[in-house]
Amino acid sequence: MTFEGTEGAGKSTLIREVAARLQEQGYAVTLTREPGGSPVAERIRAVILEEPMDPWAELFLYEAARAEHLARTVRPALALGHVVLCDRFSDSSLAYQAHARGLPWPKVKALNQAATQGLAPDMTVLLDIDPAVGLRRARDPNRFEDEGVEFQKKVRSGFLKSRREEPRRWFTVRAESGTPAQLAEKVLREFHQRSSQSSRKRASRG
Amino acid sequence: MTFEGTEGAGKSTLIREVAARLQEQGYAVTLTREPGGSPVAERIRAVILEEPMDPWAELFLYEAARAEHLARTVRPALALGHVVLCDRFSDSSLAYQAHARGLPWPKVKALNQAATQGLAPDMTVLLDIDPAVGLRRARDPNRFEDEGVEFQKKVRSGFLKSRREEPRRWFTVRAESGTPAQLAEKVLREFHQRSSQSSRKRASRG
Repeated sequence: MTFEGTEGAGKSTLIREVAARLQEQGYAVTLTREPGGSPVAERIRAVILEEPMDPWAELFLYEAARAEHLARTVRPALALGHVVLCDRFSDSSLAYQAHARGLPWPKVKALNQAATQGLAPDMTVLLDIDPAVGLRRARDPNRFEDEGVEFQKKVRSGFLKSRREEPRRWFTVRAESGTPAQLAEKVLREFHQRSSQSSRKRASRG
Repeated sequence: MTFEGTEGAGKSTLIREVAARLQEQGYAVTLTREPGGSPVAERIRAVILEEPMDPWAELFLYEAARAEHLARTVRPALALGHVVLCDRFSDSSLAYQAHARGLPWPKVKALNQAATQGLAPDMTVLLDIDPAVGLRRARDPNRFEDEGVEFQKKVRSGFLKSRREEPRRWFTVRAESGTPAQLAEKVLREFHQRSSQSSRKRASRG
């Protein structure tokens, strides 16, 4: 399960809340994030976040961190049967690097494909918020947040484009529609419903 | 002009020799290397050389360093009319990551293309050496050299494949065929011959 959204939507709080509840329900959970989530990927994250750079270079760094994160963290966790919760994933590359920064969408998709070798999330939560409200809520300004509300609007519309391309993968939660606990409940209800659907499908094929 | 070859061929010595002579002849020269050649790219180089990692992650890091290096160093130098001499370039990604490590050649080419946005060297010098001799000559062992002579043979055959695809771009010099000064002379003769041919072509079109 991946979590996407613009700055200040509250993704980090929501994902921790979801992880805690899944653990209480007996699931083994791997909680991770991009860019980062493995030692090399965290080193790459530091380069990305500290230095302004060429947009292609930035995209390649995200993809490098992604390939390494999948190899070291995500695939091993999935192999152990964990539920993997990831704060940002390929859709962020499409929303930020393609839609907001203007790199060609199909090329970014092709690079995502090379980095993930086709591994895609079962479910992607869009934690949606008015970008202006999000920016006021964001506590740790970094260079992305510095780019202001116009940039965040473009990012949001990039997520919506991704959602139009694969509507069944996405589950949208409005950030203003409840406390973190309530939002986590919504996500978990959807997760359990999808899990039981997919086990029924497996059973009917069996 | 780019310089390629397996470990221990003597690329770094040759390229400095060529740069010095071009400067004596009145050319403005930018001498650079990959991965690296700009502040962000050198930080990426440190990550690549210190840590073992997933092969796709490694390729993406090279491409990130390349995009940044071109944006910050190579394109500005070309715009000033400099002769740019680069120690390793896209052909190394093909030889190492595709041919030797087994990533698909066409995909590596596509990523090279995205990182370079089509900028290609006028002339690529292959400093060719028997890989076993090269390994004995290499003084700074790093993890690539550790992989031994079989790996270097694969790298060499990757360069030869690249040369077969674009024979006119390549100029091959045998590392054992002279002193660094003599090898530099050969490279410079070829460089001047190609320069005068391309100015004649420009003149005949003018």
